[in-house]
Amino acid sequence: MSKQNLKDKTTPIFPFTAIVGQEEMKLALELNVIDPKIGGVMIMGDRGTGKSTTIRAIADLLPEIEVIKDDPFNRHPTDETLENPETEFIKIPMVDLPLGATEDRVCGTIDIEKALTEGVKAFEPGLLAKANRGILYVDEVNLLDDHLVDILLDSAASGWNTVEREGISIRHPAQFVLVGSGNPEEGELRPQLLDRFGMHAEIRTVKDPDLRVKIVEERTLFDLDPYAWVDKYKDQQEALKKKIISAQNLLDKVEMPYDFRLKISKVCSELDVDGLRGDIVTNRAAKAYTAFQGKDSITIEDIEKIIVLCLRHRLRKDPLESIDSGYKVKKVFEEIFEII
Amino acid sequence: MSKQNLKDKTTPIFPFTAIVGQEEMKLALELNVIDPKIGGVMIMGDRGTGKSTTIRAIADLLPEIEVIKDDPFNRHPTDETLENPETEFIKIPMVDLPLGATEDRVCGTIDIEKALTEGVKAFEPGLLAKANRGILYVDEVNLLDDHLVDILLDSAASGWNTVEREGISIRHPAQFVLVGSGNPEEGELRPQLLDRFGMHAEIRTVKDPDLRVKIVEERTLFDLDPYAWVDKYKDQQEALKKKIISAQNLLDKVEMPYDFRLKISKVCSELDVDGLRGDIVTNRAAKAYTAFQGKDSITIEDIEKIIVLCLRHRLRKDPLESIDSGYKVKKVFEEIFEII
Amino acid sequence: MSKQNLKDKTTPIFPFTAIVGQEEMKLALELNVIDPKIGGVMIMGDRGTGKSTTIRAIADLLPEIEVIKDDPFNRHPTDETLENPETEFIKIPMVDLPLGATEDRVCGTIDIEKALTEGVKAFEPGLLAKANRGILYVDEVNLLDDHLVDILLDSAASGWNTVEREGISIRHPAQFVLVGSGNPEEGELRPQLLDRFGMHAEIRTVKDPDLRVKIVEERTLFDLDPYAWVDKYKDQQEALKKKIISAQNLLDKVEMPYDFRLKISKVCSELDVDGLRGDIVTNRAAKAYTAFQGKDSITIEDIEKIIVLCLRHRLRKDPLESIDSGYKVKKVFEEIFEII
Amino acid sequence: MSKQNLKDKTTPIFPFTAIVGQEEMKLALELNVIDPKIGGVMIMGDRGTGKSTTIRAIADLLPEIEVIKDDPFNRHPTDETLENPETEFIKIPMVDLPLGATEDRVCGTIDIEKALTEGVKAFEPGLLAKANRGILYVDEVNLLDDHLVDILLDSAASGWNTVEREGISIRHPAQFVLVGSGNPEEGELRPQLLDRFGMHAEIRTVKDPDLRVKIVEERTLFDLDPYAWVDKYKDQQEALKKKIISAQNLLDKVEMPYDFRLKISKVCSELDVDGLRGDIVTNRAAKAYTAFQGKDSITIEDIEKIIVLCLRHRLRKDPLESIDSGYKVKKVFEEIFEII
Amino acid sequence: MSKQNLKDKTTPIFPFTAIVGQEEMKLALELNVIDPKIGGVMIMGDRGTGKSTTIRAIADLLPEIEVIKDDPFNRHPTDETLENPETEFIKIPMVDLPLGATEDRVCGTIDIEKALTEGVKAFEPGLLAKANRGILYVDEVNLLDDHLVDILLDSAASGWNTVEREGISIRHPAQFVLVGSGNPEEGELRPQLLDRFGMHAEIRTVKDPDLRVKIVEERTLFDLDPYAWVDKYKDQQEALKKKIISAQNLLDKVEMPYDFRLKISKVCSELDVDGLRGDIVTNRAAKAYTAFQGKDSITIEDIEKIIVLCLRHRLRKDPLESIDSGYKVKKVFEEIFEII
Amino acid sequence: MSKQNLKDKTTPIFPFTAIVGQEEMKLALELNVIDPKIGGVMIMGDRGTGKSTTIRAIADLLPEIEVIKDDPFNRHPTDETLENPETEFIKIPMVDLPLGATEDRVCGTIDIEKALTEGVKAFEPGLLAKANRGILYVDEVNLLDDHLVDILLDSAASGWNTVEREGISIRHPAQFVLVGSGNPEEGELRPQLLDRFGMHAEIRTVKDPDLRVKIVEERTLFDLDPYAWVDKYKDQQEALKKKIISAQNLLDKVEMPYDFRLKISKVCSELDVDGLRGDIVTNRAAKAYTAFQGKDSITIEDIEKIIVLCLRHRLRKDPLESIDSGYKVKKVFEEIFEII
Repeated sequence: MSKQNLKDKTTPIFPFTAIVGQEEMKLALELNVIDPKIGGVMIMGDRGTGKSTTIRAIADLLPEIEVIKDDPFNRHPTDETLENPETEFIKIPMVDLPLGATEDRVCGTIDIEKALTEGVKAFEPGLLAKANRGILYVDEVNLLDDHLVDILLDSAASGWNTVEREGISIRHPAQFVLVGSGNPEEGELRPQLLDRFGMHAEIRTVKDPDLRVKIVEERTLFDLDPYAWVDKYKDQQEALKKKIISAQNLLDKVEMPYDFRLKISKVCSELDVDGLRGDIVTNRAAKAYTAFQGKDSITIEDIEKIIVLCLRHRLRKDPLESIDSGYKVKKVFEEIFEII
Repeated sequence: MSKQNLKDKTTPIFPFTAIVGQEEMKLALELNVIDPKIGGVMIMGDRGTGKSTTIRAIADLLPEIEVIKDDPFNRHPTDETLENPETEFIKIPMVDLPLGATEDRVCGTIDIEKALTEGVKAFEPGLLAKANRGILYVDEVNLLDDHLVDILLDSAASGWNTVEREGISIRHPAQFVLVGSGNPEEGELRPQLLDRFGMHAEIRTVKDPDLRVKIVEERTLFDLDPYAWVDKYKDQQEALKKKIISAQNLLDKVEMPYDFRLKISKVCSELDVDGLRGDIVTNRAAKAYTAFQGKDSITIEDIEKIIVLCLRHRLRKDPLESIDSGYKVKKVFEEIFEII
Repeated sequence: MSKQNLKDKTTPIFPFTAIVGQEEMKLALELNVIDPKIGGVMIMGDRGTGKSTTIRAIADLLPEIEVIKDDPFNRHPTDETLENPETEFIKIPMVDLPLGATEDRVCGTIDIEKALTEGVKAFEPGLLAKANRGILYVDEVNLLDDHLVDILLDSAASGWNTVEREGISIRHPAQFVLVGSGNPEEGELRPQLLDRFGMHAEIRTVKDPDLRVKIVEERTLFDLDPYAWVDKYKDQQEALKKKIISAQNLLDKVEMPYDFRLKISKVCSELDVDGLRGDIVTNRAAKAYTAFQGKDSITIEDIEKIIVLCLRHRLRKDPLESIDSGYKVKKVFEEIFEII
Repeated sequence: MSKQNLKDKTTPIFPFTAIVGQEEMKLALELNVIDPKIGGVMIMGDRGTGKSTTIRAIADLLPEIEVIKDDPFNRHPTDETLENPETEFIKIPMVDLPLGATEDRVCGTIDIEKALTEGVKAFEPGLLAKANRGILYVDEVNLLDDHLVDILLDSAASGWNTVEREGISIRHPAQFVLVGSGNPEEGELRPQLLDRFGMHAEIRTVKDPDLRVKIVEERTLFDLDPYAWVDKYKDQQEALKKKIISAQNLLDKVEMPYDFRLKISKVCSELDVDGLRGDIVTNRAAKAYTAFQGKDSITIEDIEKIIVLCLRHRLRKDPLESIDSGYKVKKVFEEIFEII
Repeated sequence: MSKQNLKDKTTPIFPFTAIVGQEEMKLALELNVIDPKIGGVMIMGDRGTGKSTTIRAIADLLPEIEVIKDDPFNRHPTDETLENPETEFIKIPMVDLPLGATEDRVCGTIDIEKALTEGVKAFEPGLLAKANRGILYVDEVNLLDDHLVDILLDSAASGWNTVEREGISIRHPAQFVLVGSGNPEEGELRPQLLDRFGMHAEIRTVKDPDLRVKIVEERTLFDLDPYAWVDKYKDQQEALKKKIISAQNLLDKVEMPYDFRLKISKVCSELDVDGLRGDIVTNRAAKAYTAFQGKDSITIEDIEKIIVLCLRHRLRKDPLESIDSGYKVKKVFEEIFEII
Repeated sequence: MSKQNLKDKTTPIFPFTAIVGQEEMKLALELNVIDPKIGGVMIMGDRGTGKSTTIRAIADLLPEIEVIKDDPFNRHPTDETLENPETEFIKIPMVDLPLGATEDRVCGTIDIEKALTEGVKAFEPGLLAKANRGILYVDEVNLLDDHLVDILLDSAASGWNTVEREGISIRHPAQFVLVGSGNPEEGELRPQLLDRFGMHAEIRTVKDPDLRVKIVEERTLFDLDPYAWVDKYKDQQEALKKKIISAQNLLDKVEMPYDFRLKISKVCSELDVDGLRGDIVTNRAAKAYTAFQGKDSITIEDIEKIIVLCLRHRLRKDPLESIDSGYKVKKVFEEIFEII
């Protein structure tokens, strides 16, 4: 059977703007897409709530990226020293890490034999290569081996993946928004790992029956005729895409007043958050949220909107404690920002 | 010894219509065959109750399918871009996953060496290929590795199997009705996995001695002269086959009134079912059951008939709780649908 | 050292008719030999009670079978499409599964390399091939991996062994009487597996000193001069062989009245036996026992003789409960068959 | 470095007759050497009590055996069909099973590749081959894998070792006296395995200081000048060797009266010994002991001398019970044999 | 893809002098760099406190070292017997041991095949080679296998790495400052291993909000324009570099009076510190600290500054006790040095 | 990189006579060196007390041995049948068994392929070969696999190492003083293994501050200028070397009176020491100590000096009991030797 015959046929993706509810997750994804330095998001919550669909949807919404043709790392022509490389435009890659993936599968492998005899082409890229400039989604990340989670987080933080074997060292760009998800009933990540996710969103099943019917209906209609459905949301999709692009452009112009920065750090200190990732992420997320609204000046409300998502997973000291529902963060926030 | 000498000789299959009792399991299988999007069925119950026989029987009952000749994926000519491929008609495949099957055995393997040197023929299809357009039966699914269950459920849900190794990625259609079975005394599936089965049927040993004698007799007569036995049920088999085919054709015309949809979602919400799979499956199963009766308009009784099978396995939050016997679902159903 | 030099020299087998005591085990073996569809026997009891000797003895007693010459599956000429294959007569095979046998050893292996290059001779048969048309004995079956027990039971039930590897599938006949044994102090089989053995015999050490002396003496005499000893029992052996052969021929003519069948099912139902294997086996064993006595009409006494052996291991619901001593089965039998 | 350069230089063996104390172990070894059908001996007791020295010593004492020259199985010319094979005389082999030996090391291995291409010389014999016609000593047998103990016991019982791999089956003689030893503080063998050792001896450290000094002195003198020491015990060694040889010849003439046999079986039955190995071994050991004394008629004292060694390890039903010190066996023996 | 294309591009390192707070860790690193014989430092404390950044920063600060060109061991020309080898100047190597690194990866591997055929080039250096004359950082060292920690400590202590395989023995210089870090919530090192680290520093998250804001700001500014930032700290970096170099030169001239040495040993004895590493390290660290201040005569204050870092991890006897906060060491120090 | 370039450069060894304290360990080493038949020593005690330094030091002190040039087993010309082999003088080998060493590494390996094709040079010697005629040091022997400890003890006791693989058997001399060490907080050896070490020494950290300063000073001075330091102890080293050599020569002349031997055995019996190793070692060690003092007649004081080291580790029956501090042995010694 020829390999060509088994190639994937494109299936339409459910539109991001057609997704009902799940505002926390959607906001966290949008902000990470606007500023990937926020450092990814960990989504915890009920099964069957469309996490995978939502992530796939935001990847689909984003503008295509220009890459060197057939480059296994999706690199931009300016990343490379080739002269006038041929380029193409592709969808933002969205890689779904399979349960039970090995380190080789994730990082790629070096064929030593080949490296020595042929010199080149000895590296077989893995999922981190595939995810460069896109989104890497890890469902049930709390069931993943700590060692692999560590590799994912290191790569997401540094933007590079390094593979070394027997003196040969390959390093390639691996910049992506890391999205993890899990079910709290199956155990949490170690605090050390959890802390390295920029944000933490919770998702809950919709309770309102009318809304449920609506979601079911939309999902059914989409399944019935995906092309028509995609068409229906075309304008909304286009509008959100533009909003995200202009937020990306506006981001550098958003300023955070010193007083707010100080208060954010007071909140972190009061909450006994280890390290300064909490401070940094809250600053970044507040700026991204401000830019997302087309503004360049931050208000207390902007910070309020995102601070729980940025801090709630950083309060635990002990793997057995449960994640804050947001109540503690909110309370300290209100005291320090003197709301009422 | 030549391979030819050891080929299987066909043995007649016990007729589906000759099976006495086990109505829940039989109904769930019929509805899944009518609408494979229901998403399979998990059968829990006593040992020695003919689960395997029943599943083999429904596969045997169904009309033959047209496939490209010798295609290892049982594809329909329209799935392929070959010009006028030669075709043949085969029985609906029914694959019985052996205890202890490996991922390679299930998904197929890529021979990298061959892929690079010969380009084609490098994929050795697995059981998912064999099950395409048929039924995949996993006995004692609760003893299977979570990782494999996840692969089966992903494949059943998406209709595709993807195998990737060292940069080579093969994807082939793998649409099938997934039927799992297990004995509750040996432990349950994790709620996360159980929730992904469309329906959940319980089977019990027949208690009535006359019925037992009848079943034993029929089984003995069948063993004695299977061909005569098959002949005896020929008309009933033909009738059921027709009924299923016309239900498949009618399915798209069945409408579910908004009020019923809302009430179904109310039941799910009241029962605190996570996600919306419960809502979706109940809608689908009710339609399939209506079509099965040759009708195109759904009644409360149609929903009542199937709602327990669709929801009972979605109530647990904790792997240690036991599956609802149906009482809770029934009670909430009756309240919301205002049946006295 | 040449392989020929190390071939086995035939050693005489202790005669079945010279075995003192252990009536349950002997009866179960005889009935299974008369009707292999009974489905094997599980023997539980004390160590050092000559289980292996007894099984070897019954295999030795049976008439030789005609097989295709050098066929690794011991097939009968009519199983094969060869024209006038050369045949030979061999002893009924008795295979003793070694502790720690692997799946490859049991099922046989496929040499993929060879299969592709040479097309034939790629299958290296295992112990199931060797056991075809004979007896497979598994000592300490309760210490065997569940996965292997399952393979043995599947093969015994279907009469076929299927080996599949990388798309190559070999299937060969593997019909045998499966005899398991174990020591109850070392744990039981899972009820799911135990239930699939047709009968269940218990063996106990002889207590009577005179009998013990007799057994020791006979064993010692046999060890001293096995050929003389074999000679001494020649007539009894011949007589039992004839009795078994005529029972095999008579079997199809034995009828079980409807009333008895109903009562058997009542007993099973009353005992809460899962599934219908209990009903089926009791019917078969009663017929075989009747035929063994040269009769074609079944009496209550015939059923009474075998019903405990057929049902006692099917009452448990829980792996930790112990096997019924026969008391419960007997009591329900007497109630339902109205024996005072 | 050439292999020749590293060959073993012969070191003299401490003479058996120079060993002080440890009468139980010495008697059990002597009786097993006189009648290997007794079935080996399990020695339990203190560390540092010269078990290994004693076993090596009895092997050294025995007359040399005639074997086919360079035969890896130490076969006697009459075991083989070679015409006038060249023979040589060798010491009785004494094989000391190393801790952590693998099944391959014990049983030998088949080189399939070689078997197919060269036909012969494909079997690489293991320790069982080396032990043929000698003694196999397993120190700390209670730490050995059950599976290996089973292989050793099967081989010791049948006198044959069978190795099968991928359809090739090699069988060679492997008759030996199996001697196991262990320290009761480190756990016992499973009763199922223990029961298969013919006898069971206990050893204790000598308490008497004078005796201790004597043993130390002898050991030191031996270490100082082993050749002189060996010389000193030459006559005693020769005498014991002759005594054993004449016992071997006398053995078949020793008769056990029916009344004694009955009483032995009464003892076994009264002690609730499973199976008949106890009866058989007690008979054999009593005969061997009688022959050892140059007599051909057994007395009660002869039986009394050996019955504890033959039965004490057969009383347990439960792996956690401890071995009888001999008190129970002795008491029942005295009752039944009416010794006051 | 060619290997060249994936080479690392240099990224500026955050300046050591720009790091706010974490005085214990910084001091321990500086002293180890001044006198590598102190024996490394173990850093325990909160996550997210910039441990890795700080270590990378001190490596960056240090003067470049002269090495033989392309030497995989970073050797100085005087380490080698080559005549006038070509040399180059490189940054002090800072190797970050990845989680899950294997012994081969750490120590290097010998290719036996190559060693025999080609004689040379058979050694593939590992991370210890790379770390020679630099810093080896092991994050989460408490999660590392004891066996590997032992190798690292041996190498750090001896300055050599020895790899032996099948009679081939390679030994290369591997002198480095070993820096371990860990989170106390995840368990400690065994006292045996911990004791072999020269010093032990604790780090805590900064609590002061103004300071937090300052750190966040600096980190953000650095991320925004690393080159400008590096430029800003150029003078401070240069000054510290000089201070360290002159301390290295002064070190041999610093003398510790006998009375102080005696008192240090009294403290160790009183604290029941095992062995003499505590005494030795305290002497060394006090000298290094004195030299660091440009002095050559030690004061009580110099000792006070470093004694807690040198001794606190040596008080435990039991893996489950927690590390002293410094209170015990300080108290005994004050008593013995008669401070008030 | 050529192998030559990475060869070890000799580093001076700290002189044995410069070691302060640790008299028990030093005495045990000296006596074992005088009479290697004592059977090694197990050293238990605090970490960081210079165990490895001390052992290395005694090896360095001893006179060089004459070996066949380049012989991997360090054999003496008289061990070999070569005619006039070229010889060389080497330091007594001191092998430090690395943590995690494999059996292959310890015993050496046989290259079967090579053995068959080339006949010779097929054995790759291991650490036991390297240790022949020297000292083998195993730090943390209580963490070593029992199986390996057993191999080491067998080799130390017999003076030979035997490697067998697939019928090829290599045996080479492996006589060495086995020195184990461990930390009692990390668990003990099994009594069975501990009993096989000749002596048992305890080491404690020096408590006296003056002594501590002295040790630190000496260690520091040595590190500063090892050659000068070695020079300083030249005479003392030479004197001790001579004393040991003359003790070795005197040893055979030392006589132990019968009365003392009897009393030693009484002590062992009274202490309930299993086996006679305790008696033997006490005799040997007392003689060695007497010879060490240049005397040939043993006094009670000589025995008193060594008896605790010889017996204290032989009193336990249970792996969980702790080793006697010496109190019990001393008390029984005094009673039996009638020291008031």
